[in-house]
Amino acid sequence: MQTTAAEALGQHRDELEQALREAVGTTHLPLEAASRYVMGWEDEHGRPCDAGGKRIRPALCIQAALAFGGTLSDALPGAVAVELVHNFSLVHDEVQDHDAERHHRPTLWALLGEAQAINAGDFLYARAIRALISGTAPLDRRMAALDVLTSAITSMIDGQWHDIAFESREAVSVDDYLSMVAGKTGALLSAPLRIGALLAGAPAADAQRIGEWGARVGAAFQAHDDYLGIWGDPGETGKSNTNDIARRKKSLPVVHALGNADAATTVLRIYARPDISEGDIEAVVNALEDAGSAEYCRERARSQVEAADALLRDLPFEAETRERFEAIARFFVERRA
Amino acid sequence: MQTTAAEALGQHRDELEQALREAVGTTHLPLEAASRYVMGWEDEHGRPCDAGGKRIRPALCIQAALAFGGTLSDALPGAVAVELVHNFSLVHDEVQDHDAERHHRPTLWALLGEAQAINAGDFLYARAIRALISGTAPLDRRMAALDVLTSAITSMIDGQWHDIAFESREAVSVDDYLSMVAGKTGALLSAPLRIGALLAGAPAADAQRIGEWGARVGAAFQAHDDYLGIWGDPGETGKSNTNDIARRKKSLPVVHALGNADAATTVLRIYARPDISEGDIEAVVNALEDAGSAEYCRERARSQVEAADALLRDLPFEAETRERFEAIARFFVERRA
Repeated sequence: MQTTAAEALGQHRDELEQALREAVGTTHLPLEAASRYVMGWEDEHGRPCDAGGKRIRPALCIQAALAFGGTLSDALPGAVAVELVHNFSLVHDEVQDHDAERHHRPTLWALLGEAQAINAGDFLYARAIRALISGTAPLDRRMAALDVLTSAITSMIDGQWHDIAFESREAVSVDDYLSMVAGKTGALLSAPLRIGALLAGAPAADAQRIGEWGARVGAAFQAHDDYLGIWGDPGETGKSNTNDIARRKKSLPVVHALGNADAATTVLRIYARPDISEGDIEAVVNALEDAGSAEYCRERARSQVEAADALLRDLPFEAETRERFEAIARFFVERRA
Repeated sequence: MQTTAAEALGQHRDELEQALREAVGTTHLPLEAASRYVMGWEDEHGRPCDAGGKRIRPALCIQAALAFGGTLSDALPGAVAVELVHNFSLVHDEVQDHDAERHHRPTLWALLGEAQAINAGDFLYARAIRALISGTAPLDRRMAALDVLTSAITSMIDGQWHDIAFESREAVSVDDYLSMVAGKTGALLSAPLRIGALLAGAPAADAQRIGEWGARVGAAFQAHDDYLGIWGDPGETGKSNTNDIARRKKSLPVVHALGNADAATTVLRIYARPDISEGDIEAVVNALEDAGSAEYCRERARSQVEAADALLRDLPFEAETRERFEAIARFFVERRA
């Protein structure tokens, strides 16, 4: 199953990268050069490198379009747009969170300053819109796809707003948290599928349903990601496994534990300290484990994948297509990093 | 003449404000509330107030649509979009420039922090796109308008990039500067006219020409604005008349003076000082005046208005419409603040 999912997500990767490069631009314009760095095609000196991300969102867009009988050419502008929006959001998030590194590379603001990173994020946003509106799919499909993308961006920004707001708030409920991540990360995992379906000419209801599948898979992915943020193998994730606690993140296991009186006392006492030691981190991890928060995350990931599977049964897919989407959903929650 | 221009720019102001309010949103969503503050409808406590800007860009969009026989209803989504984009750019600029105040009000980041101001700018951008694509004009016109808006945003961001880059660069030529401001402020004065024309169904060439008129008027406006930034009456502009020099701005009179050996020596010596005194500012102003930089700005404003007038003669306007546009152009360079 995993091979199938990885193969599906890697399908047309070369064409996608080519389309992304054309959409970003190949000139010496500083904003294009900065964007090429962000996209992982160039290092900080402008030399070619291969540091691009997994391109999961555009892969989902392409898979949805193909599943509904669309062509790669119809799907590519949507695939490009969602990946550029994802990168725009990363660049702004890095400024907002003061993250100086991502995947062992300096972030853009760490290289060029916050002001130019804000510009580069805005530029990637504009390039995303340009890519989507200049596609070859019929005008009404492109307009419908743009409407979905714009709503997803709005949800994403709203989620980011609440994520930042939660940092200075003691009480964050599981519901608050799930609503925040549904926006911050769920919207841009759901939208690519709905956009791919719309560009392929799928009926609106089917496009919405495959988008809902993406929202479920996104929720499963986020629960799994939050689990890995504390219990993952740091050698594989590329980030410290204690990062979420060291930075006082109120991730899913933490907000779950806040619903348990004993665990909440420990977590809030330690999160209130000016400095969090290794011993503090261990104490929080132990409190979370005692409260069943690790298992809660794993169970949520499982149940969201089951809900996603159920949605597939109402879509006009061949068995092979359905199995491919089932495999993709599992791929998101079975990775160890 | 001035009354005519002011009247034209104020035409349909109530309908515009109503459309802007609907586009931003009236709920308690924090991003909508933050945007209402930015738009000047609410103070920092959410109480109603009247601190909106002059709404020049949407007024130009409406005037262009009406001049080409379009309806207010066709024009409003474009007018709303350009004003929201303008406000998105202000919010991000304020973060980038660390400006804590605008028109005697705290800027958004000064109230909510830089991270949330970045989010609010992104949100206004998304709301602008939503406004434009949900208009009532035929689909192909809306798509053409969105293409123009996206290009203008790209030029605006590129201009902002260079403006920031110039701050840490000693040598900025007049050409470098004019190219930068054509993007940073010119693009979003040109685009509203072209968008208004396109939404009204004007031929592409006419839409481009009225957009070029806007670019000329924008260039005149900028030259005049830079003049006022040094020689304007601080009581009327609402900002210190020494602000541009105190902040080491390389505005048009300054880059013009850098082409004069004597003036350049004075300006660069003083701009290199860790602190700029009142006496330093006076010395720079004197050097600029000796180099003819004040007159250069005034002459550039005049010649750009003349070039704008010439463009109007190739457009299929009634005499009355042409005179209204001529009056608007003069309005931009005759204001004292």
